[in-house]
Amino acid sequence: MRVLMITGNGFEDSELLCPRYRMEEEGFQVDIAAMEWGEVKGKRGYVVSANLAMDEAEPEAFDALFLPGGKVAEKLAMHEAVIEFVKGFAKLQRPIAAICHGPVILGAAGVLKGKKATCYYKVSDKLEAEGAIYVNEPVVVDGNIVTSRQPSDIPFFMKEVIRVFKGQ
Amino acid sequence: MRVLMITGNGFEDSELLCPRYRMEEEGFQVDIAAMEWGEVKGKRGYVVSANLAMDEAEPEAFDALFLPGGKVAEKLAMHEAVIEFVKGFAKLQRPIAAICHGPVILGAAGVLKGKKATCYYKVSDKLEAEGAIYVNEPVVVDGNIVTSRQPSDIPFFMKEVIRVFKGQ
Repeated sequence: MRVLMITGNGFEDSELLCPRYRMEEEGFQVDIAAMEWGEVKGKRGYVVSANLAMDEAEPEAFDALFLPGGKVAEKLAMHEAVIEFVKGFAKLQRPIAAICHGPVILGAAGVLKGKKATCYYKVSDKLEAEGAIYVNEPVVVDGNIVTSRQPSDIPFFMKEVIRVFKGQ
Repeated sequence: MRVLMITGNGFEDSELLCPRYRMEEEGFQVDIAAMEWGEVKGKRGYVVSANLAMDEAEPEAFDALFLPGGKVAEKLAMHEAVIEFVKGFAKLQRPIAAICHGPVILGAAGVLKGKKATCYYKVSDKLEAEGAIYVNEPVVVDGNIVTSRQPSDIPFFMKEVIRVFKGQ
């Protein structure tokens, strides 16, 4: 199981680190893509290494996609390389997870139309503007898309992420 | 399964948050004790609520003990209430986990004598001075004591923590 996380400077540290460690515990290989290859710093100061630049990431190479939060996700939602990747990945019908501001990227890529989803409450209007059915719950699963609201939801979120990513 | 985490201001944020979320995912109830009841802040700025003061924590009330890292663990290792709790808890033969600077508390309580354990490399001499057999591995299990070195070990550490806490 190879999972791609897409993020950038200013990510919400716990929403990247805790799911990453959880997925690695499960034996998944976790790659990190940012706009450019190299170090990426979270808003609390944790540094992770992006081993891929967005323009070299191929959807077919990954079994699952994970979008952490932080306001940077709203910026990523305006980048063509990110949107093209997410559109291409969604066409493969492989599992996708997003938390907090992360679901905004899914909305911008048009993959939430008519689907139930959640996100950080301050950006719920952005999801609804893209046709999502916003649900205020710790974790929402609609088909192969798993979304969540905030760090305190991580226990509920990751339980479903692991299940859906494993196709269970 | 009721787990007690003992910590204080300056904890290593990811070593408290990620294991806490992981244990909550597993359905464990996680309580946090500090010297005083109330908010406790990590070195990266995350805030958690200590719902217990150390002097009111009773070993018998908990099924497992978890000691996160951060240099604050070295300070806690010098507090009588913490040491008395850990000594009392160890006598119950219930599972204990500690990461990074956390194992220093176990050393100070005398529960690592003759046992294999690991910790952050900068404090390995403190463990050895207390009679532990220091092993430089991501996770070390000796009986019902699980120890680890640093945040990047969390995937290996938590796999064993969950297993040992469940008595498997």
